Amino acid sequence: MKQILVIGAGKSATVLIDYLCHEAVTMQWHVTVADIRKSDAEKKIEGKPNTTAVAINITDENSRKTLIARHDIVISMLPANMHMPVAYDCLALGKHMVTASYVSDEMQALDEEAKAKGLIFLNEIGLDPGIDHMTAMKILDKLKSEGAVITGFETFTGGLLAPESENNPWKYKFTWNPRNVVMAASGGAVKFLHGGKLKYIPYHKVFRRTERIVLDKIGVFEGYANRDSLKYLKKYQLEGIKTLYRGTLRRPGFCKAWDIFVQLGATDDSYIMEGSKKMTHRDFINSFLLYHPSDSVEIKLAHAMRIDLDTDEMLMLEWLGVFENEPIGLEGDATPAQILQHILEKKWTLSPDDKDMIVMYHKFNYQLGSEDKEIKSTLVVYGKDSQSTAMAQTVGLPVGIATKLILLGEIKTCGVQIPLTADIYNPVLDELVKHQIVCSEYQVK
Amino acid sequence: MKQILVIGAGKSATVLIDYLCHEAVTMQWHVTVADIRKSDAEKKIEGKPNTTAVAINITDENSRKTLIARHDIVISMLPANMHMPVAYDCLALGKHMVTASYVSDEMQALDEEAKAKGLIFLNEIGLDPGIDHMTAMKILDKLKSEGAVITGFETFTGGLLAPESENNPWKYKFTWNPRNVVMAASGGAVKFLHGGKLKYIPYHKVFRRTERIVLDKIGVFEGYANRDSLKYLKKYQLEGIKTLYRGTLRRPGFCKAWDIFVQLGATDDSYIMEGSKKMTHRDFINSFLLYHPSDSVEIKLAHAMRIDLDTDEMLMLEWLGVFENEPIGLEGDATPAQILQHILEKKWTLSPDDKDMIVMYHKFNYQLGSEDKEIKSTLVVYGKDSQSTAMAQTVGLPVGIATKLILLGEIKTCGVQIPLTADIYNPVLDELVKHQIVCSEYQVK
Repeated sequence: MKQILVIGAGKSATVLIDYLCHEAVTMQWHVTVADIRKSDAEKKIEGKPNTTAVAINITDENSRKTLIARHDIVISMLPANMHMPVAYDCLALGKHMVTASYVSDEMQALDEEAKAKGLIFLNEIGLDPGIDHMTAMKILDKLKSEGAVITGFETFTGGLLAPESENNPWKYKFTWNPRNVVMAASGGAVKFLHGGKLKYIPYHKVFRRTERIVLDKIGVFEGYANRDSLKYLKKYQLEGIKTLYRGTLRRPGFCKAWDIFVQLGATDDSYIMEGSKKMTHRDFINSFLLYHPSDSVEIKLAHAMRIDLDTDEMLMLEWLGVFENEPIGLEGDATPAQILQHILEKKWTLSPDDKDMIVMYHKFNYQLGSEDKEIKSTLVVYGKDSQSTAMAQTVGLPVGIATKLILLGEIKTCGVQIPLTADIYNPVLDELVKHQIVCSEYQVK
Repeated sequence: MKQILVIGAGKSATVLIDYLCHEAVTMQWHVTVADIRKSDAEKKIEGKPNTTAVAINITDENSRKTLIARHDIVISMLPANMHMPVAYDCLALGKHMVTASYVSDEMQALDEEAKAKGLIFLNEIGLDPGIDHMTAMKILDKLKSEGAVITGFETFTGGLLAPESENNPWKYKFTWNPRNVVMAASGGAVKFLHGGKLKYIPYHKVFRRTERIVLDKIGVFEGYANRDSLKYLKKYQLEGIKTLYRGTLRRPGFCKAWDIFVQLGATDDSYIMEGSKKMTHRDFINSFLLYHPSDSVEIKLAHAMRIDLDTDEMLMLEWLGVFENEPIGLEGDATPAQILQHILEKKWTLSPDDKDMIVMYHKFNYQLGSEDKEIKSTLVVYGKDSQSTAMAQTVGLPVGIATKLILLGEIKTCGVQIPLTADIYNPVLDELVKHQIVCSEYQVK
């Protein structure tokens, strides 16, 4: 009886655990779910056969090792910066490992030893990174095998609201880690390739250099650039490509309004605002505006941004309550980014009947002989309910499927891997189809 | 015979060395000038009695210690990050030390031991920091002794061109460290107090939140905010003050044009631009603009900045040659900030007959009884020639004067100090008057 260990039973693990428990019955496997709060783990496996819930303190080396030693494969659904202790144990104890996170330098360093021991440490096998890698590489490999020269690749992913839940003027709520949304595109200049030229956008311009994207049936979106597209040149073997751009999707209008926070400096995470624990929302916004003894925060903001008071952006800010004399409510002084996140969470939190939606869009340009060709590929996934969200499905299912394929010996490759090769992406994508996670692909020209 | 050691014989040390050599004759002192290039040291002391020039490799501990051991006081005119080896030697060997740099944490840590040994390590005794501290504290101390409650303090300093040398549309050239000019206001949000409120400006807004300052006889300036004014609350004992703002002066129009570089991202120092060693000025600017197969860099820039093609800003950029197909000429790939500095140095370098100018401006607001009062204080210093620049005078003379006062025992305080107290600022300012470095002060109300 194969033993599977899932560490981390947060919201993101719901679909993954359901999938594994379902497969475990057929395969006669056993699934252990470990979380710092045992009750969270228990809730996830309630009524499911072949399962155990345990409490884990990830920093307690002894109990962590004892737990890992009893299993054949370990899935870490922990925050990205907490994988390494688990990875070292897996290597020492001879266990496979799966994560949905980017490969860190520390993880990469384990490659040789993992290979020597016949282990796979498979990472970046969630949505983004994950399904994006697999769906892109499948098309890129096919085009190359047909003799195509790839000239352009643009890709966008958005974790959004399903249309029926777009019940606020931003058409947005947090469906994943809020901090990542607040810090999006920060931390260095955006870099990409366009028309054979390296292009750079400073953080404070990213949300004003958006691209309009119209997708059949699901409507109009805008895309802003992710931080570093250039690292995909090598990863995807696209050296020599003219255009390479990775971005994030939002509904139209989002970026222009979000840009106001960027322009104010309200997404800065580099300093603590003194006295901010006693501030109101209004005080917070006013901290970034000119001093005036009587002018309102609203007029000062609208003037600083050179916009009318009745623009969509102003109404979107008002809807968020940023002009209210409501206490922020954080216990200590915090950075602007932390304060902004806290204010946003008051309004951008999913209610129980809200549904989310994942949209992924790839555009491939290539030359076949003397012809310029273009393929577009779109993936849309809707959330089923507040547990089985589109995000939990698209992160959890590829992780679960890959885990099964490793245990069945259908994925044979060893070492620190990401799903860029056909031996991984073909069987994973094939099974995702059965879960209605499938791209619509069409030849534009 | 007292022995004075000056380490660093760069341009900034010219007036200092002249002053010390002149005093050395009267006092029967000896001045050693040490530089990594002995010829630079020799040039500075040519024909002056009681002087020696030596070569020094600051990283060679033995020769450094041997040299310092022979002297009574050491003046370090090295770059700010190179003072510490000298400071440790001075402490070990029982020598006083003087610098014009900000006190680093490492320097501050020597305070107790210096006091125990009866040594003074006097820092921040140049122009800014230096003369700004002294001229401000003299007035602040006087006002407080008269029972005034200080409500506002604003201070601006600019290293500028003398009016007769304002022969370019920026009315600016580098008169000091070019890198500091390119990086001005970067590295974190600007923080200050206004009307009792803490205010924050993100870097990308600093050069659009300027203040117009009109000074009698020398004309109109604009001031932009320095990074952190709040640290002066404690230093100047201004806790409870309503307005506290430190800034830098430029001629009107400079900031709006400079802001274009900031908006482009051309002052970013966080990444190396790949292939930049082969770029032209025009390529560099184009890297930050939208791709287009035929639109000119000029129209793309003007459009991105929402300005007309015939605005002053565009003409200022054209004058700098940033649209030219001229190779940048750096030997390796570099950061945007390094490239921009290199391009600017081609045009913003002082010619032999250019003269510089220092302008310092303080505004004090206070309450005396029930009355609101205001004092303004202005300091203007003109360069005499390409050696005796206003910058070299205003940095070198206070350093030299303080050194003399320490040797004469007129400055008696020990430990790591900056010139905030009357025992230091009074005698230094008194002697600066004899060199025509003196504030004009007037009561506004």
